[in-house]
Amino acid sequence: MNNLQYAKTVLEELNHTLMSINPEKADSFVELIDEANEIFCAGAGRSGFQVKGFAMRLMHMGKHSYVVGETCTPNIKEDGLLVICSGSGETKSLVNHASKAKEVGAKIALITINPESSIAKVADVVIEISAPSPKSAKEGDIQSIQPMGSLFEQSEGLFMDIAIMMLMERNHMDSDTMFGRHANME
Amino acid sequence: MNNLQYAKTVLEELNHTLMSINPEKADSFVELIDEANEIFCAGAGRSGFQVKGFAMRLMHMGKHSYVVGETCTPNIKEDGLLVICSGSGETKSLVNHASKAKEVGAKIALITINPESSIAKVADVVIEISAPSPKSAKEGDIQSIQPMGSLFEQSEGLFMDIAIMMLMERNHMDSDTMFGRHANME
Amino acid sequence: MNNLQYAKTVLEELNHTLMSINPEKADSFVELIDEANEIFCAGAGRSGFQVKGFAMRLMHMGKHSYVVGETCTPNIKEDGLLVICSGSGETKSLVNHASKAKEVGAKIALITINPESSIAKVADVVIEISAPSPKSAKEGDIQSIQPMGSLFEQSEGLFMDIAIMMLMERNHMDSDTMFGRHANME
Amino acid sequence: MNNLQYAKTVLEELNHTLMSINPEKADSFVELIDEANEIFCAGAGRSGFQVKGFAMRLMHMGKHSYVVGETCTPNIKEDGLLVICSGSGETKSLVNHASKAKEVGAKIALITINPESSIAKVADVVIEISAPSPKSAKEGDIQSIQPMGSLFEQSEGLFMDIAIMMLMERNHMDSDTMFGRHANME
Repeated sequence: MNNLQYAKTVLEELNHTLMSINPEKADSFVELIDEANEIFCAGAGRSGFQVKGFAMRLMHMGKHSYVVGETCTPNIKEDGLLVICSGSGETKSLVNHASKAKEVGAKIALITINPESSIAKVADVVIEISAPSPKSAKEGDIQSIQPMGSLFEQSEGLFMDIAIMMLMERNHMDSDTMFGRHANME
Repeated sequence: MNNLQYAKTVLEELNHTLMSINPEKADSFVELIDEANEIFCAGAGRSGFQVKGFAMRLMHMGKHSYVVGETCTPNIKEDGLLVICSGSGETKSLVNHASKAKEVGAKIALITINPESSIAKVADVVIEISAPSPKSAKEGDIQSIQPMGSLFEQSEGLFMDIAIMMLMERNHMDSDTMFGRHANME
Repeated sequence: MNNLQYAKTVLEELNHTLMSINPEKADSFVELIDEANEIFCAGAGRSGFQVKGFAMRLMHMGKHSYVVGETCTPNIKEDGLLVICSGSGETKSLVNHASKAKEVGAKIALITINPESSIAKVADVVIEISAPSPKSAKEGDIQSIQPMGSLFEQSEGLFMDIAIMMLMERNHMDSDTMFGRHANME
Repeated sequence: MNNLQYAKTVLEELNHTLMSINPEKADSFVELIDEANEIFCAGAGRSGFQVKGFAMRLMHMGKHSYVVGETCTPNIKEDGLLVICSGSGETKSLVNHASKAKEVGAKIALITINPESSIAKVADVVIEISAPSPKSAKEGDIQSIQPMGSLFEQSEGLFMDIAIMMLMERNHMDSDTMFGRHANME
């Protein structure tokens, strides 16, 4: 198959996952972001890269955003929001972060394949992505031609980019204002 | 607009960008990866996150892949390939990397909006993405409802995931084999 | 106090910590590194920066070294060695990494303030640094004028640089050969 | 040689480098930090790890500190300070950062072996470390038994830790207050 044939299938898969995301949950996700004083973003592996892209856009919007594990990330406090991207919802380090966030009274938003997971149980809002799990494919699961967690990772990235546009709309922001905060040393 | 309405437009935009990628160029890109002994991946900002996702999948395939700027990345040599993601094709640090790679006789693959850029001029293959540039919107440019370079970044990420499937097909690899190399500490 | 007065005290403190490191343990540490096929380095916060500096030097020596959590770090296997830097020896994510490493039969080397810690209990070699713990200062503890874990972090960094020289001596390596592997894109 | 013998020599070398740092320059460095509204820290390779450790401590002190290249680092502005660690003072990406910082009217502090370097020429304060350069050893150079830039990297790390204590003294801060800002998710 050539790149165009693969692209066609990937876009059909993304159409399925993105169109299945509950709009009320999406609104709650956006509201939590909008109200948070500080937003801490966490994810492992390729989900980590997607959530870093989100943290960067939040910075462009003038939000106090941080990536868990980066150098200048402070302690999370009561008025903080922890955004976790985790397909399984069971990644140990992320479960630890979630329980620490709960302990201090912070809020948690989770993007996951698994709405019954340990992190989902303590989250204030859960965005469910209908993508196959790389670890535990079961009968009846969503199908994907893509390897491992790729469909989930793409979908969470695109969903967070959509959430950015919803936040821009709520706050009457435009791309040029955001571009003004773009790092000038890179 | 709610998330589903935004999703519809984003998917239409991605359909445009992905379906405009030249299949012969895509094949050359995949071939360069397949033949390289060591693959060095470089990008700044959100393009950097996308190319890191690619570097990680290459590692899952058993390739010797590295991210420029990470701790254990060695010097690039004659048999190396440098994969650069840069919307403008002019990011100074990446222009420097490209000229160093050329100097030692390594090959260069570029994913960019700008096929006339400085990096494009020294690249062995250029994948052009028809997305608007955040810095220099001109009349006649591709339109996007998305802020800054988002459409480019999404498109390059999806294209590299498609390249992974083309590599898997060439090498008769499956998701389970790749999952076996997935980091077990994270 | 000016910088010279502080320097005098810091150097006295470092003289105390470095001169208290057990030479037999140091030899065992160096031997484990020398025999390992792949070396995985892990640490949080400022200890993480020190262990990354070690991972980089190991790469300069031609070793297969990785930093846990970086993009191209594969799964640890039976012939791997996990080097952990942790003052408390109780950092949750590092405890998880240690137990995963044990599970696959890999070896563990720990540099710590606390030789009774959870990680110390499963480690094959423990390098004890006589520095105060930032979290749980107790009577009889080592004193330092430095804040938080600074003395520990400095000492572990210097100890690992010393281990590099011991490895160079064992393998008849010199600085120029190592410099040849230094990243040429940075 | 065993670890204690190496330690003795390393400490003598550090005594030389740290005791040669000009106290007036050190005071100016500390003052620039104290007065800056935002502090951007940059370095490549092992110097990068040292300057990240400094950025983290500044965050613990309640300063707005950032690492150039990390996710949530914004654009540098007129009231910003750029702290660069570079042995040669010629690392291309860092020269670019320095010229961008100058362009917007920000201040620059440099820690280097080479006070005649390109970055030194545009810096507001230069801390010179009397350590050998890994790339261009010349007759009359400082000697070190350590490979590559190790003595420089250790010295800059210790100097910045000393600068932290000078800042604490100026601002009547103690370790416990700082520990309260330590990341609680890691």
